Amino acid sequence: MGDVRQAPSERSSYPLSRTIATRWSDNDIYGHMNNVVHYSLFDTAVNGFLMERGVLDPHGGEQVFLVVETGCRYLGEMAFPDMITAGLRVAHLGTSSVRYEIGLFRNDEPLASAEGFFVHVNVDRETRRPAPISPAARTVLEALLRRS
Amino acid sequence: MGDVRQAPSERSSYPLSRTIATRWSDNDIYGHMNNVVHYSLFDTAVNGFLMERGVLDPHGGEQVFLVVETGCRYLGEMAFPDMITAGLRVAHLGTSSVRYEIGLFRNDEPLASAEGFFVHVNVDRETRRPAPISPAARTVLEALLRRS
Amino acid sequence: MGDVRQAPSERSSYPLSRTIATRWSDNDIYGHMNNVVHYSLFDTAVNGFLMERGVLDPHGGEQVFLVVETGCRYLGEMAFPDMITAGLRVAHLGTSSVRYEIGLFRNDEPLASAEGFFVHVNVDRETRRPAPISPAARTVLEALLRRS
Amino acid sequence: MGDVRQAPSERSSYPLSRTIATRWSDNDIYGHMNNVVHYSLFDTAVNGFLMERGVLDPHGGEQVFLVVETGCRYLGEMAFPDMITAGLRVAHLGTSSVRYEIGLFRNDEPLASAEGFFVHVNVDRETRRPAPISPAARTVLEALLRRS
Repeated sequence: MGDVRQAPSERSSYPLSRTIATRWSDNDIYGHMNNVVHYSLFDTAVNGFLMERGVLDPHGGEQVFLVVETGCRYLGEMAFPDMITAGLRVAHLGTSSVRYEIGLFRNDEPLASAEGFFVHVNVDRETRRPAPISPAARTVLEALLRRS
Repeated sequence: MGDVRQAPSERSSYPLSRTIATRWSDNDIYGHMNNVVHYSLFDTAVNGFLMERGVLDPHGGEQVFLVVETGCRYLGEMAFPDMITAGLRVAHLGTSSVRYEIGLFRNDEPLASAEGFFVHVNVDRETRRPAPISPAARTVLEALLRRS
Repeated sequence: MGDVRQAPSERSSYPLSRTIATRWSDNDIYGHMNNVVHYSLFDTAVNGFLMERGVLDPHGGEQVFLVVETGCRYLGEMAFPDMITAGLRVAHLGTSSVRYEIGLFRNDEPLASAEGFFVHVNVDRETRRPAPISPAARTVLEALLRRS
Repeated sequence: MGDVRQAPSERSSYPLSRTIATRWSDNDIYGHMNNVVHYSLFDTAVNGFLMERGVLDPHGGEQVFLVVETGCRYLGEMAFPDMITAGLRVAHLGTSSVRYEIGLFRNDEPLASAEGFFVHVNVDRETRRPAPISPAARTVLEALLRRS
C-alpha cells in the first residue's frame, strides 16, 4: 500500500483533459462516487481521446485496443453532481501496448481525487492477437508522453 | 404501442435542459447506447435539477423523493461519444407526487432521440410514507409546468 | 398514475423465470436498488431467454432485436444482497414486434416488487429496418404467451 | 506490465467463492465484459461476504469500509450470459486495513479469467478517519488469510 501515500498530482501533470458530468447513479449507499465508476471515467477519457483523433474505430476498425490491466488509488471523495475533469498522459509506449495514466479532478480542485492507469494492447480484431500500433496512432500517443 | 408512433418533440417543448456526456460503457454490443442508460440520464436530469435549486438534500433531508413509475420510448440511436442534452418539464404536479417528462437530444439534432417520464413521490425519509411536497419545492416545480 | 395502484402479480403469472444476483453498486444513496437497475434486469431476462433458446445471436445474427419502448412500476424496495427472480411472459406477439412483461420478485416474496414491460422489434442488422420474426423465434415466443 | 505475464490462479487458491450472474449490459461494443464490470464483481464479492458474516452494516454501522486502492489484470474474456464465480482471499490484514485478492472464473473453467485486488480501510462513519478493525471483523477476515 506504499503507493497510497504518494502525493496527488496537480492538473499540469496531464497534458490533455476531458470533462465528464457525474450521474445520480454514480453515488453509492455512502453518498459518494462508487469505486467502480472511476474506471468508467478512465475508459471514457482514453477511448474518447482515441476516437476524436481518428485512430480508433470501434465499429469497423481492423485493429482494436483491448484492456489488459487497470488500477486506481482513491485519494479523496467525489460525488454527484460534481463535474469531473479527467487528465490523461501516456506513461509508456511499446510496440503494441500503451500505458495511460489518468487523474480525476473534482470541480475546481487543484489536486487529483483519484489517480490510476490503464494498459491497452493493440490487437487484430478477428484473431485478437497483438499487432504493432499503427504509425498514425503512434504519432497521436507520442504527443501525450509524459515529460520525464 | 400507439405511443411509439407519436412524433418526437422539439427542444422548445422543454423549458429546462442539462447536458450530459456519454461514456464508453454506455454503448452495448450493437454499438449504440443501451436502453438502460436512458433512465440513468433521466435520473440525473431530475435529481440534478432538484439539488441545484436547493429542494433536495439526499444526504440529510427529512423528506426525499422515491421513484414509483418510469417509462421511455426510443426514437433514434445515440452512442458514445455523443453529447446528450436532457430537456425537462413537469407534466403533472399533485399534492405529494410529480410527473416529469424528459427528452434526450443527440448533439445538435432538433428532435428528441428518446422521450420518457419519471414519477416521483415525496416521502418522509424514515417512514417512507407520502408527505405533501414543501412550498419551496412546489414553487420550483411549478416553473417547469408544461404550457398547455 | 392509475397503474401504480394496480395490485402486484404473483409468481404464477409468469411462465418462465430467471434468477439474478444483485450487486453492491445496485444500491443508491438511499440504500436500495436504484430505479435504473430494474431495466438492466429486464434486459438480462429477455435477452438471456432468447440466447438460451438459440433464437438470438448478438455477435453474428443477420437479424437482431432493438428496444423501442420500456416501462416499470416500482411497488416495493429491493436491495443488495437480495436474490431477484425475474418472471417473464409475452403479452403481445406481432409480425415483427413482441411485448414482454416482466415481474421482479425479491428473495422468497410471493408478490412482485416491480413490474414492467419491454417491447422488441426484430430488425435487419445492417439496415435496421423491421423484419418478420423468424418461425423459430416465433415458436419460442408463443410458448410464453400470457394465458388470457 | 510484468504482472500481466503471471500465470492465472486455480480455484483452490481462493478459500471462499460467490457466484454472480452476468447481465446483458455487462457486454461492451466488442461483445465481451467491459473492463469496468470486473470491479463491480469485486465489490459485490467483498461486501457480500462482510454483510453475510454480520460484520458490515452499510445502513447503520458506526464504522464502514472505504476503498483506497484497487487493481485488475484481464487474462481472458468473459461475456453475458456466463456465470462468474468470484474467489476471495485476504492477502494482508493490518490494524485498520485489509487487502483482498479476487479471482474471477468463467463458467466451469479451472483458471481465472481475471485477477485483482481491493484494499479497504475501516473508518469511523462520521469523521471518515481510520479506526482499528473490530475483533469480530478480524476473526472473520483471518479465516480468509492466504496460506503462505
